[in-house]
Amino acid sequence: MPSAVVTFGEIMLRLQPPGALRFVQTDRFEAVYGGGEANVAASLAQFGQEARFVTRLPHNPLGEACLGALRRVGVDTRFVARGGDRLGIYFCEKGHSQRPSVVVYDRAGSAIATAGPGDFDWEAAFERADWFHFTGITPALSEALPDIVAEACRTARRKGLAVSCDLNYRKKLWSRETASRVMTGLMEFVDLLVANEEDAADVFGIQAPGSRIEAGHLDLDGYAVVARTLSERFGIPRVAMTLRESLSASDNGWSALLLSGGTIHASRRYAIRIVDRVGSGDSFGAGLIHALRQGQPDPEALEFAVAASCLKHTIEGDMNLVTEAEVDALVRGGGSGRVQR
Amino acid sequence: MPSAVVTFGEIMLRLQPPGALRFVQTDRFEAVYGGGEANVAASLAQFGQEARFVTRLPHNPLGEACLGALRRVGVDTRFVARGGDRLGIYFCEKGHSQRPSVVVYDRAGSAIATAGPGDFDWEAAFERADWFHFTGITPALSEALPDIVAEACRTARRKGLAVSCDLNYRKKLWSRETASRVMTGLMEFVDLLVANEEDAADVFGIQAPGSRIEAGHLDLDGYAVVARTLSERFGIPRVAMTLRESLSASDNGWSALLLSGGTIHASRRYAIRIVDRVGSGDSFGAGLIHALRQGQPDPEALEFAVAASCLKHTIEGDMNLVTEAEVDALVRGGGSGRVQR
Amino acid sequence: MPSAVVTFGEIMLRLQPPGALRFVQTDRFEAVYGGGEANVAASLAQFGQEARFVTRLPHNPLGEACLGALRRVGVDTRFVARGGDRLGIYFCEKGHSQRPSVVVYDRAGSAIATAGPGDFDWEAAFERADWFHFTGITPALSEALPDIVAEACRTARRKGLAVSCDLNYRKKLWSRETASRVMTGLMEFVDLLVANEEDAADVFGIQAPGSRIEAGHLDLDGYAVVARTLSERFGIPRVAMTLRESLSASDNGWSALLLSGGTIHASRRYAIRIVDRVGSGDSFGAGLIHALRQGQPDPEALEFAVAASCLKHTIEGDMNLVTEAEVDALVRGGGSGRVQR
Amino acid sequence: MPSAVVTFGEIMLRLQPPGALRFVQTDRFEAVYGGGEANVAASLAQFGQEARFVTRLPHNPLGEACLGALRRVGVDTRFVARGGDRLGIYFCEKGHSQRPSVVVYDRAGSAIATAGPGDFDWEAAFERADWFHFTGITPALSEALPDIVAEACRTARRKGLAVSCDLNYRKKLWSRETASRVMTGLMEFVDLLVANEEDAADVFGIQAPGSRIEAGHLDLDGYAVVARTLSERFGIPRVAMTLRESLSASDNGWSALLLSGGTIHASRRYAIRIVDRVGSGDSFGAGLIHALRQGQPDPEALEFAVAASCLKHTIEGDMNLVTEAEVDALVRGGGSGRVQR
Amino acid sequence: MPSAVVTFGEIMLRLQPPGALRFVQTDRFEAVYGGGEANVAASLAQFGQEARFVTRLPHNPLGEACLGALRRVGVDTRFVARGGDRLGIYFCEKGHSQRPSVVVYDRAGSAIATAGPGDFDWEAAFERADWFHFTGITPALSEALPDIVAEACRTARRKGLAVSCDLNYRKKLWSRETASRVMTGLMEFVDLLVANEEDAADVFGIQAPGSRIEAGHLDLDGYAVVARTLSERFGIPRVAMTLRESLSASDNGWSALLLSGGTIHASRRYAIRIVDRVGSGDSFGAGLIHALRQGQPDPEALEFAVAASCLKHTIEGDMNLVTEAEVDALVRGGGSGRVQR
Amino acid sequence: MPSAVVTFGEIMLRLQPPGALRFVQTDRFEAVYGGGEANVAASLAQFGQEARFVTRLPHNPLGEACLGALRRVGVDTRFVARGGDRLGIYFCEKGHSQRPSVVVYDRAGSAIATAGPGDFDWEAAFERADWFHFTGITPALSEALPDIVAEACRTARRKGLAVSCDLNYRKKLWSRETASRVMTGLMEFVDLLVANEEDAADVFGIQAPGSRIEAGHLDLDGYAVVARTLSERFGIPRVAMTLRESLSASDNGWSALLLSGGTIHASRRYAIRIVDRVGSGDSFGAGLIHALRQGQPDPEALEFAVAASCLKHTIEGDMNLVTEAEVDALVRGGGSGRVQR
Repeated sequence: MPSAVVTFGEIMLRLQPPGALRFVQTDRFEAVYGGGEANVAASLAQFGQEARFVTRLPHNPLGEACLGALRRVGVDTRFVARGGDRLGIYFCEKGHSQRPSVVVYDRAGSAIATAGPGDFDWEAAFERADWFHFTGITPALSEALPDIVAEACRTARRKGLAVSCDLNYRKKLWSRETASRVMTGLMEFVDLLVANEEDAADVFGIQAPGSRIEAGHLDLDGYAVVARTLSERFGIPRVAMTLRESLSASDNGWSALLLSGGTIHASRRYAIRIVDRVGSGDSFGAGLIHALRQGQPDPEALEFAVAASCLKHTIEGDMNLVTEAEVDALVRGGGSGRVQR
Repeated sequence: MPSAVVTFGEIMLRLQPPGALRFVQTDRFEAVYGGGEANVAASLAQFGQEARFVTRLPHNPLGEACLGALRRVGVDTRFVARGGDRLGIYFCEKGHSQRPSVVVYDRAGSAIATAGPGDFDWEAAFERADWFHFTGITPALSEALPDIVAEACRTARRKGLAVSCDLNYRKKLWSRETASRVMTGLMEFVDLLVANEEDAADVFGIQAPGSRIEAGHLDLDGYAVVARTLSERFGIPRVAMTLRESLSASDNGWSALLLSGGTIHASRRYAIRIVDRVGSGDSFGAGLIHALRQGQPDPEALEFAVAASCLKHTIEGDMNLVTEAEVDALVRGGGSGRVQR
Repeated sequence: MPSAVVTFGEIMLRLQPPGALRFVQTDRFEAVYGGGEANVAASLAQFGQEARFVTRLPHNPLGEACLGALRRVGVDTRFVARGGDRLGIYFCEKGHSQRPSVVVYDRAGSAIATAGPGDFDWEAAFERADWFHFTGITPALSEALPDIVAEACRTARRKGLAVSCDLNYRKKLWSRETASRVMTGLMEFVDLLVANEEDAADVFGIQAPGSRIEAGHLDLDGYAVVARTLSERFGIPRVAMTLRESLSASDNGWSALLLSGGTIHASRRYAIRIVDRVGSGDSFGAGLIHALRQGQPDPEALEFAVAASCLKHTIEGDMNLVTEAEVDALVRGGGSGRVQR
Repeated sequence: MPSAVVTFGEIMLRLQPPGALRFVQTDRFEAVYGGGEANVAASLAQFGQEARFVTRLPHNPLGEACLGALRRVGVDTRFVARGGDRLGIYFCEKGHSQRPSVVVYDRAGSAIATAGPGDFDWEAAFERADWFHFTGITPALSEALPDIVAEACRTARRKGLAVSCDLNYRKKLWSRETASRVMTGLMEFVDLLVANEEDAADVFGIQAPGSRIEAGHLDLDGYAVVARTLSERFGIPRVAMTLRESLSASDNGWSALLLSGGTIHASRRYAIRIVDRVGSGDSFGAGLIHALRQGQPDPEALEFAVAASCLKHTIEGDMNLVTEAEVDALVRGGGSGRVQR
Repeated sequence: MPSAVVTFGEIMLRLQPPGALRFVQTDRFEAVYGGGEANVAASLAQFGQEARFVTRLPHNPLGEACLGALRRVGVDTRFVARGGDRLGIYFCEKGHSQRPSVVVYDRAGSAIATAGPGDFDWEAAFERADWFHFTGITPALSEALPDIVAEACRTARRKGLAVSCDLNYRKKLWSRETASRVMTGLMEFVDLLVANEEDAADVFGIQAPGSRIEAGHLDLDGYAVVARTLSERFGIPRVAMTLRESLSASDNGWSALLLSGGTIHASRRYAIRIVDRVGSGDSFGAGLIHALRQGQPDPEALEFAVAASCLKHTIEGDMNLVTEAEVDALVRGGGSGRVQR
Repeated sequence: MPSAVVTFGEIMLRLQPPGALRFVQTDRFEAVYGGGEANVAASLAQFGQEARFVTRLPHNPLGEACLGALRRVGVDTRFVARGGDRLGIYFCEKGHSQRPSVVVYDRAGSAIATAGPGDFDWEAAFERADWFHFTGITPALSEALPDIVAEACRTARRKGLAVSCDLNYRKKLWSRETASRVMTGLMEFVDLLVANEEDAADVFGIQAPGSRIEAGHLDLDGYAVVARTLSERFGIPRVAMTLRESLSASDNGWSALLLSGGTIHASRRYAIRIVDRVGSGDSFGAGLIHALRQGQPDPEALEFAVAASCLKHTIEGDMNLVTEAEVDALVRGGGSGRVQR
């Protein structure tokens, strides 16, 4: 019987003007549900895995709608706690060309931010599971959540689950000091850390020497230094970094590296026309978790994760609704986009 | 130079699934902005009046969009305070036939609920104005707001403005006890009170003898007793009551009465197929304020207000986007709906 | 080989806010193409008849789109003249309940209004045809059009076609005096006249004694007098009148009468919930023309026409997209709306 | 641990022009998934029950989308067989007023119609279940399905499940003769039979004396005779009949009766403005199953079922997305449609 | 009097999620009608030619809607046979960047696939025509169709029509062996063959030496060899090949070559941002047929065809809705996309 | 107290098929309101300036809707004259890749084209203003408008306002001869002239030596010559030219130069993926006016204007709905499109 992956975090309602409209122009919003850890669970479910998502949702129709959205994509929602007053919301205006996307968060007071330790039963949630994933967003959401995440990590370790973390710093949620203190405490449990350069700098003050993301140039050596520093400082076996070249809001370069066993693996690079980049980091994490759980060697796992997250950029919404076969096809082929009949 | 009407309260983003869809079915929301006092200002602006709306809106694109929506319908927004963290939201699922509309409020922590007395300059807002309108919702939004409303009322009285109030009890915002205490204190300023039977019962414990709203039957005499009680208890010159016969979510009867100078005036009754009933009470208030300011006699003013609010039921969104000429045409004609070429 | 019906008039682009939105609320318009005589041709084409529509359309993409719309519903457009500067437009805001529909015409300077007699080849258009239909709108569109219509009528008579006319008075296009003069001149060609009470009063000053349309009451005897007066004054063999009871913009009563051979036939009455009433008069005319051409006796023809136009009220757009079988089913059945599987 | 309900049948993709558009007018279709037994499962899931739906779906993205739609509404899809070439489709054009809805079926060759007995594991599907439901549509879909349904019924009986059947005759799928033979064979397993008058007449030749459905009049005594005849002929303990008064495609009367223990119970009657009547019979069956499984007495169970299916008429799509609390509120209240804040 | 082009094949309903949505995300489909030979006819009609399309469509509202869609774009549908059970459908999910488009065919059992030889009257269809076009899809649709196509070709030859064929191999419809046998038999009638490299390899086993389409590189010499082989093996005077460089689902290079009189003509190359590439091969064929029928020399005809099909990539739907003037402008200009006012 | 900018011209309803649809495909239009001078006012309002727009609008619901659209974006509409018969319309079909955008004007007889000198009160409109802006479109709209514009310019000069003009030649509105004569007369008032190469050539016959816009190559020296010629011929202190490289309808290069005090300043160049290029010239003018009024040095003002108009290409509709902060961020940063959280 296959074992499961468990992720824990917030899922929000995302409201977005249609097409290229700005907030001030629209009288309609497109609605999807998403959040870092929910996106990872959803992506794993598309890959055919049993994926459980743990969160807390209010007892109202929006909470129900959110649950339905998770079930629709195959996520196991049996361990979702219910209660609290509201679902977090974020408003997202898609950028185009030189105009950046704009995100307005409206997540204060959400059900998970008002959760207490008694809301979650980690023993049950981790039953028959082999992997636990969280991000740096979750402990930032309330004063209670660092302890809740730590408890989850301890339980996971005790029950033999691997633990992965996406560093994901959100400056509107907490200060760098608090982030550094809390995340440092959690790093001891982490077997796989995913980060980008900004996260490492923001949370742990680890700078890549000489890189200039803005300009769309990548200094791979610099990123390798960051990965090694993270790995060594916290004793984390695997550290992955996504490398985004922000050419414009419409076009990005996308690749990644993986430090594993002291070796840096660098992936292929994709030149992407963006449909929706929200959740691409999450889809990378999901791809990596999936490939590693399938026993793929590190370089292949990295290519799978980069290809998966490349495809995420072409999918609307937060969740990477692509199958393992589709990712494999991109890994093997060239992304030529020929029609699949 | 004409004088202005000033209203004060919260305006929210209303998010609504298209057509008859339920929350759990939709991946789109229609977005409008509305709130009791904003709706009154908007309706007055359609009637050609100078209408100022005072509120507090956050410094973010949603606050800007809300301002734009107010300006679009001709409301003067110069006295809107800026600040706070978020715009209040309410989710609305339209009912049909036997299925009632469902409203989910998500307004806690909104910009106006976190406002302080220093945010509003009533002297400036009331300059060249002759009427001030608020509802029972506004003082319910925070602990600070009762005093702010009272200050506004005192300033209005000092500067010679008439004051109107729509009782509008919201049980999710405050208890009946608090509502009763606060609203009793504010009644001394009120020249025109608008209420429906439930409000009077909820806030002041004044019951109409024998009326059965649910059943769609009206006991006009009972409502007259309520109006007289309100007028006498608080010394309010004019008390108006809207009378809704809830036959279904699609069909309502609609009429009103006005107590003025001790006389009860009862309006014509409209059998309405509902497009959107949100804001119909506000449109009644606006119609009454407008007609009284124009110097119409009480019975005619009442008919204008009922006709205006009848038309509101046929308008999408919170605001009654009909002109004075359109209301007059309904008052004069029969609502036969013949095409206006 | 079956013979054809020819209609002549203007077809316009109709722009309409979606759903119940008002002009001031919308940032989208739904677009259909329609006009009295085009609607008759379209309806006849749905009934399986060869229907030619003669008009003039500009050489631009909107003219092409309009042609495509006509062909889509099976209308023969080979005799459409091309030229002129613009396609006429009308903006239509759908009414609901007590709120009437609003139509804003923007048709001045349209291709047909700037047409000359040389633009149309009636000999060719009437080849193998047995019926010609026009309305009172067409001669009102320009100073040249009365003569063009008269020429068409003369040619039709000479070639043995029956001629029908829908009186259709549009007060924004011409005065009653001009209308009376021009239409009087055209009545000599008419074998079948369709009118409603207002048209007869507006154009020819023929009043129904005592009828009160607004109030939704019908005085059948009064309408019979109008029909007889029209028939006798102009020597028209058949005069049909549609009888609309405007209960509201959402609900109408609908029936008709037909004076033929001195006998008044009164139809069944339908209580209709309106989807779109534009073009219902045209669909009545089309139904009557069709049934008479098929050789149905007058009472059956009248019932066919009323049923056809009843159904038009349930169809979006100007054109009555229902088949003969669907009309027959309503004539035979009871309009119970049971699902057709 | 609660036990489950299992339903078995076809689920199709339903494609529908938006609003009141006809097939020939539309360039868009709204897509939902539905089918008699899937609708029952979905409704039960909304009532908080564990509901399993058994069917067969193709291995293609439409099959996946259909699975997702089922999961979204909380249906357990673990026992769905995969295989076959296509998903059945039906095109549905909504009727309005006198214009009936039109359904075009395109279901030949669907995955379930090409299923064999080995595709379904009834032992597993019925584990921990107490109720099995099917309709008269399923055995009509192929020559193999009568035996498969019979096998399911036998297994259900052996494992102690109650069995319910909705008679649901589809004349395009099989002849009356075949239907009669097959359904007669299946009746022996049935504990609860749901039918309407037409089904009983079409399948078993049981006519209600004197009823005239078309005309919108109900002869309750006639229906009681039909129910008694069904109960007696096949020895079925409970027979329920839905009573639809088809006033028009927009307005229906709706009620039901239940024969149980020899007693006829007649429900309240609802006058309904229809949003979407597809699936209303299914929602009645689901309501009845739910209320009976909850142990409600027959009259209360009948009222619950009628109220549930009344609400279905106000819900878009095939599935009755209402909660038990919402149905209870309608049973207790009067369907006045007052806003739920 | 101008002569006509006749095409013969299947037209299907294409259902497509809006924008970049995947099948599993959508609750709406955009609907267009298209198919290889219908697209050619539609394109020729836009160029002002008389274009007849022969197919078989069911007697249901979808068949009518399809006919309307053909007439709308000016295609002569008088020779469309009616009958059969269903309209073929294909579901199409648009690709973006590295994500390929996905097509799910649901065409089995369509009206044309169940047609017999008696359904088509080639003598009538070819009256006053000078060109017949078909594709390799049509004979693949049923066992009867190869003979029907052969009969059409024989009749065409006898009546002096030129015959063109687009090779268009569909591996889901038939094996390479059957395709090779059938298409070889039909080649004898063909005056102009259109193919791409894959078709030639799949159907006739003719490989271009060394070309690598996936990689986006073109080996023009290799394609010339394929064209010459096709021309020589079957004695076809003109062979055209479209050359697609699949850079991604969003960006393609596009050019073509034409072998005529032993000479290879190579076209200009366009770098295209794709709106919708479905039907681009058909639009190339239509462009070539049109230019050759207009008497353009081969090189100019090739440029016209490539420019026409370049524009098709920017048009939504299967059909190339561009005029001759628009194609000419692109041939003459540089595709700079300057606004045409 | 800050002073205001006043602009004068026509504002039209723009109707556009959604997405990439062509006119002949659509049954919906997206509606925005725009026009050269209105766009400048709207953009200035987004920058926080008081911006007044003077025009003439009809007394009908479309005129009201247009007013609302202007107010929504913060434009002061108090000086809009009311009257006339219609609102001008333009139909716009968006181009993609090699397919150019198509604009169909339908503006004849609009309210402003039938305005007389008495319709505008320049004394009042210019009260407390320091800048007046018009374009070469306005005087082309009627025979009366050249004098009205001249009067506005004279009043502006007398009251000490700076005057700017965007040359904007529209060949469908007037001949080059008339344009040259009228615009020459107006140049004497102009302090800042904005033009592109085509305008200068069309109106004043000033050719850039050797430039080839079509080909996407820019000859900066040539444009400098044009700017100098314009400045010297008419004694205009500042002349700005926008430089568009039309690579395709989807991709443009965009930059500008400014001649000021005899010095040519050349801006950065942006490679833009176009969302909507309508109004980009206007947004450049607005950016320049704003930056100059803010006292920015010429090179910085030019960069601000180019960045502002770069962003306009990413905004739907005519108006540049970006804030000063957003423009500044692009000037400072690199247009990398990173998400703004």
